Amino acid sequence: MKKGELLYEGKGKKLYKTDDENLLIAEFKDDLTAFNAQKRGSEAGKGALNNKISTQIFRLLKEHGIQTHLVDTISETEQVIKKVDIIPLEVVVRNIATGSLTKRLGIVEGTILPLTLVEFYYKNDDLNDPLVNDEHCIVMNLVKSEKDLQILRHLGREINSILFKFFEEKGLKLVDFKVEFGVDKDGNIILADEISPDSCRFWDAKTNEKLDKDRFRQGIGEVKVAYEEVLRRILS
Amino acid sequence: MKKGELLYEGKGKKLYKTDDENLLIAEFKDDLTAFNAQKRGSEAGKGALNNKISTQIFRLLKEHGIQTHLVDTISETEQVIKKVDIIPLEVVVRNIATGSLTKRLGIVEGTILPLTLVEFYYKNDDLNDPLVNDEHCIVMNLVKSEKDLQILRHLGREINSILFKFFEEKGLKLVDFKVEFGVDKDGNIILADEISPDSCRFWDAKTNEKLDKDRFRQGIGEVKVAYEEVLRRILS
Repeated sequence: MKKGELLYEGKGKKLYKTDDENLLIAEFKDDLTAFNAQKRGSEAGKGALNNKISTQIFRLLKEHGIQTHLVDTISETEQVIKKVDIIPLEVVVRNIATGSLTKRLGIVEGTILPLTLVEFYYKNDDLNDPLVNDEHCIVMNLVKSEKDLQILRHLGREINSILFKFFEEKGLKLVDFKVEFGVDKDGNIILADEISPDSCRFWDAKTNEKLDKDRFRQGIGEVKVAYEEVLRRILS
Repeated sequence: MKKGELLYEGKGKKLYKTDDENLLIAEFKDDLTAFNAQKRGSEAGKGALNNKISTQIFRLLKEHGIQTHLVDTISETEQVIKKVDIIPLEVVVRNIATGSLTKRLGIVEGTILPLTLVEFYYKNDDLNDPLVNDEHCIVMNLVKSEKDLQILRHLGREINSILFKFFEEKGLKLVDFKVEFGVDKDGNIILADEISPDSCRFWDAKTNEKLDKDRFRQGIGEVKVAYEEVLRRILS
């Protein structure tokens, strides 16, 4: 697979063209950003860790029938992925209240939510990724139809069911996570982007120690050690 | 009807007990507030104008089958209303993009929305009335069930249909409005609070001149003149 022209550089990954018009190469970066990139940092080896973690998780999801963009992981930091049209929504799935949910709505930190909560945020850095409701998505043409929103919500919940159980067995609470979806060449909505400690909150089941990007957000430190611990547990 | 103890004082109204436990007296105040009461003012006679305007609109809605809390208007500034448990949601209905919609989502000011947009905001001054989606409302017990949200959305749209047409005939564009609902003693969800230039945006159909609280928010001035003009058109 020949790595071609740089197509796009995001906060956590670079995307390159390949000699197959339906495939791209995603390269995981070591950069860390938080609060819409107002806080920036870097952690050598973080990209490789996220590549390994996300690969494991996407393979697990595939085994459970979730279609993803992952074709193959070809190096420490690179994946071959299907080219998709990214749906400009961050789909956030929450099991326990923390972060923006507690700040925005006053729900007490650490509350176990009575139902798995799915939220849509409009992917737009200039607007700070605002929360949207279903009707905003339709009015702004962020999806083709109401049905797509139902599919996104269903997929978010399905992924949560699979991962919550998986991580529970690894002694980790899956607090919440953000996923992105894209439409492939056949018109299917498939899981894209990544699932890693950059996009999930993991708390140790016994100690509630944070093993995710909150260590960077909150300046707790030992970010890489935490990501390595998540990988170790996934592989255990 | 004896006016009893002051039960509650809000930004725009005071509520008093009466000798009937199912009825209250609402007194419309002259106070004006904006941006979650960060901007405050007063306009002599504004309360009386809103009482008149809201009375006319609630009577019109009743004629069209919408149940409201209004029992009788008993003085320049007072109404007898049914006592309800207020649902802690601001139901915002929008026909044209302006205000927070354009700021939050980047929709161009003045865009005629392809569908009537209904939004729910959690009534909480400390949190600055944050936007919520349906699942937030369930998780936070803001309503009893999903069905209540469908009722609120339906009522919001119904009220919009009736008022949009009514004001169109009066040479006013109903840009957007906020309504609140309550549950009466029989468990019915009925329209509460008020509908006035404090809670609606009205633009003159020909000139787009603002004839609502935006004159106060934006410091345009002649607030009372605008409210008087709205009343004049309603009665015309």
